[in-house]
Amino acid sequence: MQIIRPRTLSGFMELLPEKQIKMERMMAVLRQVYERYGFAPLDTPIIEDAQILLAKGGGETEKQIYRFQKGDSDLALRFDLTVPLAKYVALHEQELAFPFRRYQIGKVYRGERSQRGRFREFYQADIDIIGDGTLDVLNEAEIPAIIYQVFRRFGLTRFQIRVNNRKLLSGFYTMLGLGEKSGDIMRTVDKLDKLGPEKISALLQDDLGLTGDQAAEILRFTAISGGNEEVLSALENYRGRDEGFDRGLEELNTVTRNLAAFGVPEANFAVDLSIARGLDYYTGTVYETFLLDHPEIGSVCSGGRYDDLAGYYTTRKLPGVGISIGLTRLFYILDEQGLLSDALPSAPADVLVLPMTDSPAPAITLAEALRAQGLRVQLYTEPKKFKQKMRYADALRVPFAVLLGEDELAQGKCSVKNMTTGEQVLLTPEAAAVHIQKALAALDGPIILEK
Amino acid sequence: MQIIRPRTLSGFMELLPEKQIKMERMMAVLRQVYERYGFAPLDTPIIEDAQILLAKGGGETEKQIYRFQKGDSDLALRFDLTVPLAKYVALHEQELAFPFRRYQIGKVYRGERSQRGRFREFYQADIDIIGDGTLDVLNEAEIPAIIYQVFRRFGLTRFQIRVNNRKLLSGFYTMLGLGEKSGDIMRTVDKLDKLGPEKISALLQDDLGLTGDQAAEILRFTAISGGNEEVLSALENYRGRDEGFDRGLEELNTVTRNLAAFGVPEANFAVDLSIARGLDYYTGTVYETFLLDHPEIGSVCSGGRYDDLAGYYTTRKLPGVGISIGLTRLFYILDEQGLLSDALPSAPADVLVLPMTDSPAPAITLAEALRAQGLRVQLYTEPKKFKQKMRYADALRVPFAVLLGEDELAQGKCSVKNMTTGEQVLLTPEAAAVHIQKALAALDGPIILEK
Repeated sequence: MQIIRPRTLSGFMELLPEKQIKMERMMAVLRQVYERYGFAPLDTPIIEDAQILLAKGGGETEKQIYRFQKGDSDLALRFDLTVPLAKYVALHEQELAFPFRRYQIGKVYRGERSQRGRFREFYQADIDIIGDGTLDVLNEAEIPAIIYQVFRRFGLTRFQIRVNNRKLLSGFYTMLGLGEKSGDIMRTVDKLDKLGPEKISALLQDDLGLTGDQAAEILRFTAISGGNEEVLSALENYRGRDEGFDRGLEELNTVTRNLAAFGVPEANFAVDLSIARGLDYYTGTVYETFLLDHPEIGSVCSGGRYDDLAGYYTTRKLPGVGISIGLTRLFYILDEQGLLSDALPSAPADVLVLPMTDSPAPAITLAEALRAQGLRVQLYTEPKKFKQKMRYADALRVPFAVLLGEDELAQGKCSVKNMTTGEQVLLTPEAAAVHIQKALAALDGPIILEK
Repeated sequence: MQIIRPRTLSGFMELLPEKQIKMERMMAVLRQVYERYGFAPLDTPIIEDAQILLAKGGGETEKQIYRFQKGDSDLALRFDLTVPLAKYVALHEQELAFPFRRYQIGKVYRGERSQRGRFREFYQADIDIIGDGTLDVLNEAEIPAIIYQVFRRFGLTRFQIRVNNRKLLSGFYTMLGLGEKSGDIMRTVDKLDKLGPEKISALLQDDLGLTGDQAAEILRFTAISGGNEEVLSALENYRGRDEGFDRGLEELNTVTRNLAAFGVPEANFAVDLSIARGLDYYTGTVYETFLLDHPEIGSVCSGGRYDDLAGYYTTRKLPGVGISIGLTRLFYILDEQGLLSDALPSAPADVLVLPMTDSPAPAITLAEALRAQGLRVQLYTEPKKFKQKMRYADALRVPFAVLLGEDELAQGKCSVKNMTTGEQVLLTPEAAAVHIQKALAALDGPIILEK
């Protein structure tokens, strides 16, 4: 038989078991937190009608999309989870109860130029709350609480959710007589942390035709900083000059003032007037999230309020608010930087049971008894030498090996070997389960390390 | 804006929240049982190099595969989880510890002719154990234990795992002088439950050129029935006439005799000589699983032993054993037949908190307190009339609504309304959490109904 060299396409993440278990652990946190806030799981097809996915059309999307024919059908792979959500909500608008809250953790596809750390297949982990006609601003206050819970559950403390409001920004630009250039200005200001104030000032003047004074005014506004109360009270000075600004300020106040009730500490949340988000899509509160010790990663969780989710597919007005985590990229960077904790068990089993009796039956019974106690147990059945069995246990990095020989069997016990410390104790199966569970519980700690 | 009619491609399952939650519950069982037996989660790309996926080539696969160009690349979507596993194992053979046990629950793609109950995108839920050079037969005995746990955890009792051995079948055909036609005979006998013995006899004679006596002999053999011990002892009569047969019989004995230790009751397991499996691939134990009250569904979990997983990609011999559940089809049929229990909560939240105080802060704090107790809680923030709020709670089918008005607040309590019984009690937040959790625990029951 001719051998074909096995390979995985570049830009497609495929992990070894140990790393996959770390990835699954992050996904489990996301699922649990999202469910804790009443979001329904959603699973939409990866393939959709290309016309539907490209309803908005144009730009990078159209260039990067995976699109192909099958029979007469013009098909494409989804490039985000938002367009499929819009389609889903429009298609099922009669069957869904609004507000509709859904989470989706799924793969999306973009045929980007291949480069290190860029993926063509990657997971997004999204939540959105969709209202029917209206959606109360309190939903926008709840989103930072969910982000906070996710990153706390990852084990982090040094992160900050930065929030701004696009009505406030537009209103401010209107005060400067620049209302019509709002979108362009926001897209430019969005690059502030990458390019710095001087470049942004130049771009505002050269590309958008602002005066030096206007650019300076915008940068001064953007730079207002301090504690949340300080920033909010500085903003009061602009009140009464533009209706949109005033509404944005109200919203920002509501979001900020309810955060304590949601349990988000001041340290993890900042009103930041430089947050703009690139997408035109957003119409109110916008969010970005930064790991304070790793600003180079950029925002790890972003989103915002939008007024019309599904305008391409229905005349019904469906405003919403949502956030997205680029999970594959986040995982890749954390792994690269050695920030994924190795202290948590990353073996596929908690226990490797090694039968050393003539009949395998007692070891099988023992393995089933340990499983019934909730342990993940692999039975090692290969007729290898003891040394090789232990080498296998080491390679898997199982925290415990349980040995069952004729001696142990005669006593109704088994030998429990802690593979990290080397310590070995003789215990009944029931005591062994308790012993192992206690040791595993003691391993609990952060999933992601802070430096 | 021009409205594009939203639609989902036919042959692609997209569920409403209530059904999706039922699907997720089945997936959670699969993940948990698979992990309990020490299988590592695996996630491979949905897109692979077409050359790799089609290494085996030919047949239905090549016709049904989704294949397309992107730039210079000849790409295709995976049509099962076995070929990607073979590639993965061959690619990472130096980094994996063998036996390598992995589970994968993922979408696969086949461009089948569209028809009711046939899906073009569907989930498979697979486990495989891959050895390096050899793999002990005890692994084949463990597989029925895993199938048993899965279906028990689904809530079923009336199911049967049917097992046979292809060495035994080949050996028997060799005794009849039909060794070279083994594969063809098995593929024909595999259709026995669909076509019945007369048609099979005709096919064996007309298509494969067997004599009437040979066909009759095969059907007599296939029909050997009774308790497992009876079948096994009937098979003893053939021992000593063919080496392959004898080895197959040994394996069947090992698998059967260890099942009690694995905790599988006799009632859920049968040696069935009519099980052949269509694929050439299998070389030893083969499995099928039937719901006894729904034979029309066919096998819901099938698999077997194979000797060479990755021969297209590596010269290393990697024997294995595995099973696959066609999850999407199984879910679809169970749902169609009304066999997915409605008694388990299928709402995205356990509790809907309805704030009825001037400030939302107390309700936010209450919702967070209930979440901290592990409950899934949605805060209802829309400024709607009470009646509309309750209608929303009904539409979501949340089991509990928690009302917080000024009265309750003054007493440090909240009103907990059981949405099923209508019963309403006034409790502290701590007592409310306990009350709700107790009621939810009482709902525990089967995921799948037995009619």
